Amino acid sequence: MALIVHKYGGTSMGSTERIRNVAKRVAKWHRAGHQMVVVPSAMSGETNRLLGLAKELAPSKASPSYERELDMLAATGEQASSALLAIALQAEGLESISYAGWQVPIRTNNAFTKARIESIDDARVRADLDAGKVVIVTGFQGMDDAGNITTLGRGGSDTSAVAVAAAMKARECLIYTDVDGVYTTDPRVVPEARRLKTVSFEEMLEMASLGSKVLQIRSVEFAGKYRVPLRVLSSFTPWDIDIHEEAVSGTLITFEEDENMEQAIVSGIAFNRDEAKIALRGVPDKPGIAYQILGAVAQANVDVDMIIQNISKDGKTDFSFTVNRSDYAKTMDLLRASVIPALGVVDLEGDTKICKVSIVGIGMRSHVGIASKMFRALSEEGINIQMISTSEIKTSVVIDEKYIELAVRALHKAFDLDQPTAD
Amino acid sequence: MALIVHKYGGTSMGSTERIRNVAKRVAKWHRAGHQMVVVPSAMSGETNRLLGLAKELAPSKASPSYERELDMLAATGEQASSALLAIALQAEGLESISYAGWQVPIRTNNAFTKARIESIDDARVRADLDAGKVVIVTGFQGMDDAGNITTLGRGGSDTSAVAVAAAMKARECLIYTDVDGVYTTDPRVVPEARRLKTVSFEEMLEMASLGSKVLQIRSVEFAGKYRVPLRVLSSFTPWDIDIHEEAVSGTLITFEEDENMEQAIVSGIAFNRDEAKIALRGVPDKPGIAYQILGAVAQANVDVDMIIQNISKDGKTDFSFTVNRSDYAKTMDLLRASVIPALGVVDLEGDTKICKVSIVGIGMRSHVGIASKMFRALSEEGINIQMISTSEIKTSVVIDEKYIELAVRALHKAFDLDQPTAD
Repeated sequence: MALIVHKYGGTSMGSTERIRNVAKRVAKWHRAGHQMVVVPSAMSGETNRLLGLAKELAPSKASPSYERELDMLAATGEQASSALLAIALQAEGLESISYAGWQVPIRTNNAFTKARIESIDDARVRADLDAGKVVIVTGFQGMDDAGNITTLGRGGSDTSAVAVAAAMKARECLIYTDVDGVYTTDPRVVPEARRLKTVSFEEMLEMASLGSKVLQIRSVEFAGKYRVPLRVLSSFTPWDIDIHEEAVSGTLITFEEDENMEQAIVSGIAFNRDEAKIALRGVPDKPGIAYQILGAVAQANVDVDMIIQNISKDGKTDFSFTVNRSDYAKTMDLLRASVIPALGVVDLEGDTKICKVSIVGIGMRSHVGIASKMFRALSEEGINIQMISTSEIKTSVVIDEKYIELAVRALHKAFDLDQPTAD
Repeated sequence: MALIVHKYGGTSMGSTERIRNVAKRVAKWHRAGHQMVVVPSAMSGETNRLLGLAKELAPSKASPSYERELDMLAATGEQASSALLAIALQAEGLESISYAGWQVPIRTNNAFTKARIESIDDARVRADLDAGKVVIVTGFQGMDDAGNITTLGRGGSDTSAVAVAAAMKARECLIYTDVDGVYTTDPRVVPEARRLKTVSFEEMLEMASLGSKVLQIRSVEFAGKYRVPLRVLSSFTPWDIDIHEEAVSGTLITFEEDENMEQAIVSGIAFNRDEAKIALRGVPDKPGIAYQILGAVAQANVDVDMIIQNISKDGKTDFSFTVNRSDYAKTMDLLRASVIPALGVVDLEGDTKICKVSIVGIGMRSHVGIASKMFRALSEEGINIQMISTSEIKTSVVIDEKYIELAVRALHKAFDLDQPTAD
């Protein structure tokens, strides 16, 4: 008997039929002797419906407390699905009770629409578990010190689940979703892609931030910080499959660098089609130049991803970076209007037809030559590399977007990711 | 400058367009210098949608805490509409903030799905009003001592509004709805029906309980207890009509027996088509007989309305009562199965083709002969009276339902309700 946290995404909660299946699955785990805490998302489409109504009434921020009201509004979606799941569990013959974020309470800061969890009081939940109840903790939301409802941002229910699992020292947090785990790369691009049985949390962080949509990145950070064993698995397997089989399915995100994990040097190939490249040539190479360029960009609320500055020549350097493609036009306008004239930059170039491809692997830390193996594989396919950026466990390149599938497949093969591993 | 409470029903909140109109109307009142507290219902259809989902998952009560979860679920409808109204007010340039019941807090007992308000702490709301904000208090809901969300039953937002107005000593509580006030009778039956400018709260209680759907009866009781001036008026007048005209429109429910009110002996004709009559003939006339009959009925959760027992003859009496038509078959089965055999009653009769017509008027207390005037008017139309029941300010008769319109029209005319009054 152990304490287990299940988290179900919006698609898994998308209809009463699906909610009933979730209830049957949770009931199976409960009957197997586990103490169960369940964190459901809102029914799919509900959050968009609610925020759509708000947008009809106020297309943009109309008041300093606009976001407070958005959180009041959006939080209802998860509260409703939590109550529905409690009712479905009761219909399965279990005692079940649901708690809104403020009832637990889950305390957050007051950054409405993107709040961060500060503490969780688990006394109430634990008393219910000890009384034999299945406890539903409403995801995505909490309460600030002033008693306002806050939400944690898109995908925030993942973070709720991990935070609850951390606070309660759960044996494992199972994230049920519409995919059956984390893959070496997108199977739609590389049919040979394999599901990883385990992935380190650092690798998961890099994959999530590179556009793998499986988990909210903050939930992975949280899991890493509190060492919560986290498993991503499918909610679309039949609810009555053998529990022992289910318990080892999906992908386990781990925090120990064990023997097995050292074997895989590169765990996966991530890619992102949503970026655009911006380059400034002939930038005067003096202190503060990076801030002058990117400060203005950040102030316009544009997230910058890769940043590359080359060594200078004749007191001039080239400075390039990538932004989300949807921010490209805005960023170019901004640079043309204020930054370029102030700096006396010779040349501004931009390109939206690029993509980023990365190899991710915790084993890269202790192995040399991984990056050069990547570059060779790309060159053998005649793919030109436009930008390179590296971190301890990741090497990313920017290439022409038309080569994306070719590059991903070549790298997947070059690093033997289609071969079964021992683990 | 005064503190005013507005309450808007589900139809008035039924779309973003209508919510925007509510916001414009509230903004008009705020700009006229009033401190505004607004209590909205859920968008029309929303509560039914949510409870429909619950019913799909558990057609009937599946656990002792089933109703607790229904309240968690249903309370989200009002929370969402409250946030939307706050956003709409912000878009009108006002500062506005919404509070869920637990945030105010509105404290209730723990009778889930039909909770009663016990106390309201107005400190938070008052601080916001003093800071110039329009405060939205979510209707229909509160929190019990254990921190559970409770709801007040259908139409509960009326009661929320009156309770807030009472706690804050508001100058007036305006209930905006889809009718423009309380009428002498249903204008669909009697085209000459007049809107009452004022009605006493005792009369309103009788009319509400007799099936007039304008206000939740509990809100009227609450208003009476705390002497909250209550006005029923239409939310479908243009939002920009003159505020002084709007402020005296609709029907004011009063608590003072002033001169004007004494003038109208009968204020209105109420009627109800939803009842059925049940009669037991030859019941042994001994102590406890009423309890033996009605105790069994009440235990089956059937509400009994009129109860009549005639004087006995030869140790036998006739006992008759009315129930809601939807409970008729169940009640007859119950009587046949257990009550009749135990009592040795000679005869059980029932009739679903009846209706109840009532005259209601606070002036009846001090005027004799009102009932006989009613009976004469009915007899002149050849309408046979099957049952009679009287209270201090009401006389009700049960008649064949085919005569309902005829009876209502005859009584409306007999008591001069189609004549304009001085008030």
